[in-house]
Amino acid sequence: MTEATIRDFLRKYKDGQVSENEAVSSLGNCFVEEMGFAAVDHVRELRQGFPEVVYAEGKTKEQVAAIMESLYKRGQGNIMATRASREKYEYVLKTLPEAKYDETARIIYIERKAMKQNDDGRYILVVTAGTSDIPVAEEARLTAQLWGNEVHTCYDCGVAGIHRLFAHLEEIRKANVIIVIAGMEGALASVVGGLTDKPVIAVPTSVGYGASFHGLAALLSMLNSCATGVSVVNIDNGFGAAVMASKINRLGRGEV
Amino acid sequence: MTEATIRDFLRKYKDGQVSENEAVSSLGNCFVEEMGFAAVDHVRELRQGFPEVVYAEGKTKEQVAAIMESLYKRGQGNIMATRASREKYEYVLKTLPEAKYDETARIIYIERKAMKQNDDGRYILVVTAGTSDIPVAEEARLTAQLWGNEVHTCYDCGVAGIHRLFAHLEEIRKANVIIVIAGMEGALASVVGGLTDKPVIAVPTSVGYGASFHGLAALLSMLNSCATGVSVVNIDNGFGAAVMASKINRLGRGEV
Amino acid sequence: MTEATIRDFLRKYKDGQVSENEAVSSLGNCFVEEMGFAAVDHVRELRQGFPEVVYAEGKTKEQVAAIMESLYKRGQGNIMATRASREKYEYVLKTLPEAKYDETARIIYIERKAMKQNDDGRYILVVTAGTSDIPVAEEARLTAQLWGNEVHTCYDCGVAGIHRLFAHLEEIRKANVIIVIAGMEGALASVVGGLTDKPVIAVPTSVGYGASFHGLAALLSMLNSCATGVSVVNIDNGFGAAVMASKINRLGRGEV
Amino acid sequence: MTEATIRDFLRKYKDGQVSENEAVSSLGNCFVEEMGFAAVDHVRELRQGFPEVVYAEGKTKEQVAAIMESLYKRGQGNIMATRASREKYEYVLKTLPEAKYDETARIIYIERKAMKQNDDGRYILVVTAGTSDIPVAEEARLTAQLWGNEVHTCYDCGVAGIHRLFAHLEEIRKANVIIVIAGMEGALASVVGGLTDKPVIAVPTSVGYGASFHGLAALLSMLNSCATGVSVVNIDNGFGAAVMASKINRLGRGEV
Amino acid sequence: MTEATIRDFLRKYKDGQVSENEAVSSLGNCFVEEMGFAAVDHVRELRQGFPEVVYAEGKTKEQVAAIMESLYKRGQGNIMATRASREKYEYVLKTLPEAKYDETARIIYIERKAMKQNDDGRYILVVTAGTSDIPVAEEARLTAQLWGNEVHTCYDCGVAGIHRLFAHLEEIRKANVIIVIAGMEGALASVVGGLTDKPVIAVPTSVGYGASFHGLAALLSMLNSCATGVSVVNIDNGFGAAVMASKINRLGRGEV
Amino acid sequence: MTEATIRDFLRKYKDGQVSENEAVSSLGNCFVEEMGFAAVDHVRELRQGFPEVVYAEGKTKEQVAAIMESLYKRGQGNIMATRASREKYEYVLKTLPEAKYDETARIIYIERKAMKQNDDGRYILVVTAGTSDIPVAEEARLTAQLWGNEVHTCYDCGVAGIHRLFAHLEEIRKANVIIVIAGMEGALASVVGGLTDKPVIAVPTSVGYGASFHGLAALLSMLNSCATGVSVVNIDNGFGAAVMASKINRLGRGEV
Amino acid sequence: MTEATIRDFLRKYKDGQVSENEAVSSLGNCFVEEMGFAAVDHVRELRQGFPEVVYAEGKTKEQVAAIMESLYKRGQGNIMATRASREKYEYVLKTLPEAKYDETARIIYIERKAMKQNDDGRYILVVTAGTSDIPVAEEARLTAQLWGNEVHTCYDCGVAGIHRLFAHLEEIRKANVIIVIAGMEGALASVVGGLTDKPVIAVPTSVGYGASFHGLAALLSMLNSCATGVSVVNIDNGFGAAVMASKINRLGRGEV
Amino acid sequence: MTEATIRDFLRKYKDGQVSENEAVSSLGNCFVEEMGFAAVDHVRELRQGFPEVVYAEGKTKEQVAAIMESLYKRGQGNIMATRASREKYEYVLKTLPEAKYDETARIIYIERKAMKQNDDGRYILVVTAGTSDIPVAEEARLTAQLWGNEVHTCYDCGVAGIHRLFAHLEEIRKANVIIVIAGMEGALASVVGGLTDKPVIAVPTSVGYGASFHGLAALLSMLNSCATGVSVVNIDNGFGAAVMASKINRLGRGEV
Repeated sequence: MTEATIRDFLRKYKDGQVSENEAVSSLGNCFVEEMGFAAVDHVRELRQGFPEVVYAEGKTKEQVAAIMESLYKRGQGNIMATRASREKYEYVLKTLPEAKYDETARIIYIERKAMKQNDDGRYILVVTAGTSDIPVAEEARLTAQLWGNEVHTCYDCGVAGIHRLFAHLEEIRKANVIIVIAGMEGALASVVGGLTDKPVIAVPTSVGYGASFHGLAALLSMLNSCATGVSVVNIDNGFGAAVMASKINRLGRGEV
Repeated sequence: MTEATIRDFLRKYKDGQVSENEAVSSLGNCFVEEMGFAAVDHVRELRQGFPEVVYAEGKTKEQVAAIMESLYKRGQGNIMATRASREKYEYVLKTLPEAKYDETARIIYIERKAMKQNDDGRYILVVTAGTSDIPVAEEARLTAQLWGNEVHTCYDCGVAGIHRLFAHLEEIRKANVIIVIAGMEGALASVVGGLTDKPVIAVPTSVGYGASFHGLAALLSMLNSCATGVSVVNIDNGFGAAVMASKINRLGRGEV
Repeated sequence: MTEATIRDFLRKYKDGQVSENEAVSSLGNCFVEEMGFAAVDHVRELRQGFPEVVYAEGKTKEQVAAIMESLYKRGQGNIMATRASREKYEYVLKTLPEAKYDETARIIYIERKAMKQNDDGRYILVVTAGTSDIPVAEEARLTAQLWGNEVHTCYDCGVAGIHRLFAHLEEIRKANVIIVIAGMEGALASVVGGLTDKPVIAVPTSVGYGASFHGLAALLSMLNSCATGVSVVNIDNGFGAAVMASKINRLGRGEV
Repeated sequence: MTEATIRDFLRKYKDGQVSENEAVSSLGNCFVEEMGFAAVDHVRELRQGFPEVVYAEGKTKEQVAAIMESLYKRGQGNIMATRASREKYEYVLKTLPEAKYDETARIIYIERKAMKQNDDGRYILVVTAGTSDIPVAEEARLTAQLWGNEVHTCYDCGVAGIHRLFAHLEEIRKANVIIVIAGMEGALASVVGGLTDKPVIAVPTSVGYGASFHGLAALLSMLNSCATGVSVVNIDNGFGAAVMASKINRLGRGEV
Repeated sequence: MTEATIRDFLRKYKDGQVSENEAVSSLGNCFVEEMGFAAVDHVRELRQGFPEVVYAEGKTKEQVAAIMESLYKRGQGNIMATRASREKYEYVLKTLPEAKYDETARIIYIERKAMKQNDDGRYILVVTAGTSDIPVAEEARLTAQLWGNEVHTCYDCGVAGIHRLFAHLEEIRKANVIIVIAGMEGALASVVGGLTDKPVIAVPTSVGYGASFHGLAALLSMLNSCATGVSVVNIDNGFGAAVMASKINRLGRGEV
Repeated sequence: MTEATIRDFLRKYKDGQVSENEAVSSLGNCFVEEMGFAAVDHVRELRQGFPEVVYAEGKTKEQVAAIMESLYKRGQGNIMATRASREKYEYVLKTLPEAKYDETARIIYIERKAMKQNDDGRYILVVTAGTSDIPVAEEARLTAQLWGNEVHTCYDCGVAGIHRLFAHLEEIRKANVIIVIAGMEGALASVVGGLTDKPVIAVPTSVGYGASFHGLAALLSMLNSCATGVSVVNIDNGFGAAVMASKINRLGRGEV
Repeated sequence: MTEATIRDFLRKYKDGQVSENEAVSSLGNCFVEEMGFAAVDHVRELRQGFPEVVYAEGKTKEQVAAIMESLYKRGQGNIMATRASREKYEYVLKTLPEAKYDETARIIYIERKAMKQNDDGRYILVVTAGTSDIPVAEEARLTAQLWGNEVHTCYDCGVAGIHRLFAHLEEIRKANVIIVIAGMEGALASVVGGLTDKPVIAVPTSVGYGASFHGLAALLSMLNSCATGVSVVNIDNGFGAAVMASKINRLGRGEV
Repeated sequence: MTEATIRDFLRKYKDGQVSENEAVSSLGNCFVEEMGFAAVDHVRELRQGFPEVVYAEGKTKEQVAAIMESLYKRGQGNIMATRASREKYEYVLKTLPEAKYDETARIIYIERKAMKQNDDGRYILVVTAGTSDIPVAEEARLTAQLWGNEVHTCYDCGVAGIHRLFAHLEEIRKANVIIVIAGMEGALASVVGGLTDKPVIAVPTSVGYGASFHGLAALLSMLNSCATGVSVVNIDNGFGAAVMASKINRLGRGEV
């Protein structure tokens, strides 16, 4: 639900086109749609700047499809479901034929607004330490693009061969916000954090084995970064990093 | 070391006022001053946007004083040492009589640039769940102010009496960046994250006992926040949150 | 074994209808039926207020069926097996054709007493933060109903969109006991706990990923709740929460 | 703030004894008193059934005294501060000469309502496994009494000599709610849980050494209790257990 | 290799039936048989009182069969492989047709010495808390029997219905050593430990879910037992408990 | 309370020297003496083979003294309090002038029965890896002696210089039970376990730093011992190991 | 890229065979080849002494093949991919028919330089505690051989039968570097460390169950080794141990 | 005990200057000196290449002095006690007036052999990330020097200002072995590991707070290093790193 929808509604009510009883019931439904298994939050766009996003893990394909359809009908922004299997995508496709699927990012999405909404060069940079971190990075890249950001990527630049990173120094320094994605020891976040004066969002990944404890090593490493200006999201949470970066990037463009 | 210092130096060298040998030695010293026990990073201001900050924990009072003096002589920005005891402050005072000390924030600082450098209303909001979180919050507040930000605070607004938080809804929604500081279960970060479209920096604190495991409960809670746009720094790291928020706020003002 | 069965038995013994030797052997069998692999506790109903419940995980289908049959023969209350697969249900069905199966709750049950035994409006409210928490919630709902409670539910009311929760404020305040079920950061327990003067049973779920550590984040969060009147059961233990809530609700009705 | 205070206030406003401006300012102050370092919640009594309680750990003595004074002035119920040192008590005493101190429970309190408000025999039983658990038990006992409950205690009844527990079987079975407090392996919660049909609140304590990991062993033990009807609060949280038990006991007396 | 084999060998060497070179090579082979992937320890029986036992997990079926065959050829005692799948058993059967398989205990074994070697009534008692603990218990039972002990069992006697345990009080008190096997909170070890003056070996199991953390809760619980005379082996280690109990039982019979 | 005391009492009652009412009250008191803060278990000697032992940590000096006095008056065995400070000892001394104190073992004790009760050579061997493990070892040694065992010790025999251990091979092989005490990586338990056919009780100690995590490394190491016949007690629990060893040693002497 | 390649290139540039523009582009490509999903580090051989090694886990078969091909074309050393499935091997084989596969070590490799490059007797010894540790050991052995080292092995020599280890004392003492591989309690590292004056690289393995916590027990054990000269790599990291050992062994041969 | 001492002794025995009985007793004493609380290992120098080192933590000052004296009398190498307080040093000084004390390294030592025994330029480099890591670094430096190595240091070179590290690139590349010491996130180990072809010993330190968990973050980080040729010792174990480095450096000089 956008601000425009609300204003339109209020005017109709004032003009008598909508009765008080109708108004109350519509408004209630506009804000939260009770679906029994889900309470879809149609004002999140107003409140948080982006529409609600479906976290598909742990939901049945029927639930994912129903929530996406509900968001599709009442909003105008881009719609997405993260951590979605191809099987769920194919089910969603039946009712939402516009839906696309990104296999690596594991995102079902419907693009209704341009992916890149600005030409001011204020881009988000997504950096990964290794090739195995790419699925998380692609989740971040696509999310940020669906929310209108220009996104650059630089994959497999880990500190074991630090010249690979330095080859991208220019791109790092010009970025508006940087998302650093790394598993194993996650040292890349500290090194990048030391090279830039822009905010760095660090995403630990579960890449690794043994004492990586499914991403715990990288997580602790990033939380203890000796570089300043580094904050951290959950293990493998490319989506969350992208939302944080988008919110920051919007500030940087004076949108909010 | 500011850009101006460098340009000035380079011109003197070109004009012959400084010999090549002198230049080499000076430059080396300008960038990193080797003090045996510390290698003071005089170009951090250029590279990261802020001068190096002294982490006083685990350093002797002599070391803290020597590093602060070195930063004082070669730079022009505000200087600070975090996690500093009063005893260390008193030692620093001998050579740097301008130094002040904030008992709650545990920061020694020298203010050479205005604390509030803008009147554009773009403020950082520091929110705490409880009264016991205030020392961490004060570390964040003072740090952000020393770096030129307008800072508002709202202390003791935890979710156990959620109307206390809602009384500040206006202030939350108008803030440019929000730092949420909470111990125990750290639920405040999710609740605030759900109420704003601006980036939220969450700081878990070690406030609590038993199964809070010195802040681990709040840390995990914040990393798993169901609200988007929340990223996390280390337990009790008010300083780190403030630097992150400053970097974001500068973007919001178009400074960088 | 109900109190009536015991009194009946004792009278028969006094009247000589049952010899002393018979009495001894019967009584032993009445209390605990030794089945080799299980010692079925036929007096739990007397002692704890509810018949023994079969925890099907880690038991073979033959064992589950045999224990349910034994409980069926000697008691009169509702019978249930939790964490049961459909395969085990189908095996039980062979000897107990009255048995039903709830796919979401994963419970095999035989309903011999009315599910709702009172009309006094003293209901248990089951609240979940998300859609993925529903299986645990359904385990709680069905358990509480099998034990005679009126149960209301309110699913997907997490704090990321807190107005979804406030839409149910009336229902929360009127409930006699509230079961709050949440994964990820589990913040919902604290928020609900701060809104009611009734006891809250918090159930952390394993919903989440990465630093949720299979429910540990939510568990620690709930144990550290800043709201008072919140106590916690094991991760994903919808059954345990329902039993606790039932015992409390019975007190509230003056039954015990 | 009690309901009576509010009604009184509203009537005065209607009668014109209080102007609109005065009303707005008073009301705001009534609900939450902003003290800078604390936002005292004067409506918690209405909302949760009990006045706000001061958690003294991590607060200065000045802060504890100021908050207690504020609660004292605006409410009529009993007032308490938990985890308070004798030093803080002595400071509080200066402005609140009625204040008492319980050394073992570490509680500062002002008793303005009768400790035992009923004669219906519905008591809370506090059981400990050992002598070293007594400070936590006394925190629970005094809290529950300050909130009007009759409380019985049974200390040092751990399972290593289970006949010590069985000597109290009668008292266990007659209690309305039971608080079980144990450190080390916390087995007592399961044993008591198996003996009663009333709700059991388990409190793990940090009593023990080595692999007790400051109460973690007892905490995990209690969360995994094989007995049903057992829920758990934080390690050493005697206060929280007492509040939970009070809320349950009030239900049992039909007060709410 | 038994002492008799050694004596026999030595005499033959002295009598000249075996040359020095033959002796050296035979002896080396007798002690340790180097098989490339395994160094079979043929003197363990002498040194530790029992022959080497094959831990089949992580070994190929060919390796298990080869090691069992090697033990079979050079020793005279009972032979066993623990944690063995049926598939491995079937492979072993090809070369060792005497081999038997216990499905529940997951043990392949060859019985060459009587399972019960004494009639002195000095038995080992194996107690479990629940039905799901039986596989671990059966591993313990069969191991202890293969090593010549009389073993009694008492399954599903957990503390949630403590009268089930007390029904076996006589058997508990008469046992020479007791193995207590329990998952979830493992409280049974403390309760049994408090009822007997004989050594108790506690085996935590991975039975449970959520905060049982695969047996960690039971393990910590048992290590912190408030009852004395309880020592602990690894999670699910029925075999290890049986060996410990056998060594103790042999002492009790004056065998060693 | 010994069996003799009980028989004596019963005879007096039969002979009429003691009335029924007196009998009931005396008996109750004999079994458990309710002291308010402690329920002293006077039949533990009968039930478990040894009198109750006072765990002094977390008890006040007054409590320790009162319990010891109570045990002193009603029993005849040796009395001990573990983890006791010198200050507590000096307080105990006022009422129990026979009490002695072992500074290293931190035990207050009263020796009323001979420390060594047998000459059959069946000794318990206490082995430590290092010098820093000695306080735990001395707690074990003194406990075992107070319970009538012959004890040998062998300190500082860790595996870093394995010939130090082998120098004691004879003593190891002849011991009836072995207590192995080690911090750091705790490897000694496995090595000793591989050298003997007697039961080994392993005691991890908190000796070490860093990744020893206060004894966790040694604890896990010992629980995973590849040698059979090793069971484990809590970190630093010399007392518990000694009780376990005593119970085993008594079996070995045919006492029970 | 070897030093020879670089010198050759530089000379061609000086001689005018290569233009400046060509030089710049070639050089960039020589150092790091950007493949989109990977940035292959062609100068690692120069910088670290060995070519880059492909970690196949988490990479698609197409990615593994493409990177191996790239390394094959630009370098002259041996090429390897670790943690590779047979399926990935078969895909690589299509474009690199020289590739071999070691099933136990799970390594795809191309041998272009002799496996054993010296006859000076300076060998690396790989020791395992058990048979189940062999896959990790084989990864170490093959890696070390591909890098030109003579490697000896000694498998299944754990401390439970310490004579098995002592049978190899000679071989241990003559080794230049020793890799000790052990799961469970990992005690072997300390014992071997105490027997040699050469560096020991310890590799904990995930062999074990229960409280081994997937190798954590062995890892902590090895980190706390009481023997000096022992350092540790990640759980199951045979590859890393071999690289470390190779670097040390090269020093020992005066190669670097 | 050096080889020379042994040869000398053997010759005297052969020549009859020492009787067989004397020989046996002397030899026993030579190898291990039983001091009751310690078994001093006088052949460690022969076996491991360095004399035994006293770990002073957890030993009394009397014990430290007695062991140092014993080592002093029987050996000829340098003697040291680590983790020693000044108070222990002063006690040692009474009997060993040559002893020196390094306050930062916390080492008591007696230098009898030259600290630097070679001029071949094969030095060990000790690098720290910060100033607070210096005490651990000094423990490493002094240990390595006492064992005859040339040692270079480079302190406060953490990755937050990576040019500080690159200023030392030459020194890093020329070192024979590198010890990298870092707390917080420990990223320095990976960065240095990627810049050199020599072995790197990583030492995590407990420097940091919150989620550094006393060095755990740095430890895990270093164990998961994406750079090869990095192995790890215990948290804060500067001594252990130095011994490992010394053993490697000796190999590099062809001494062994």
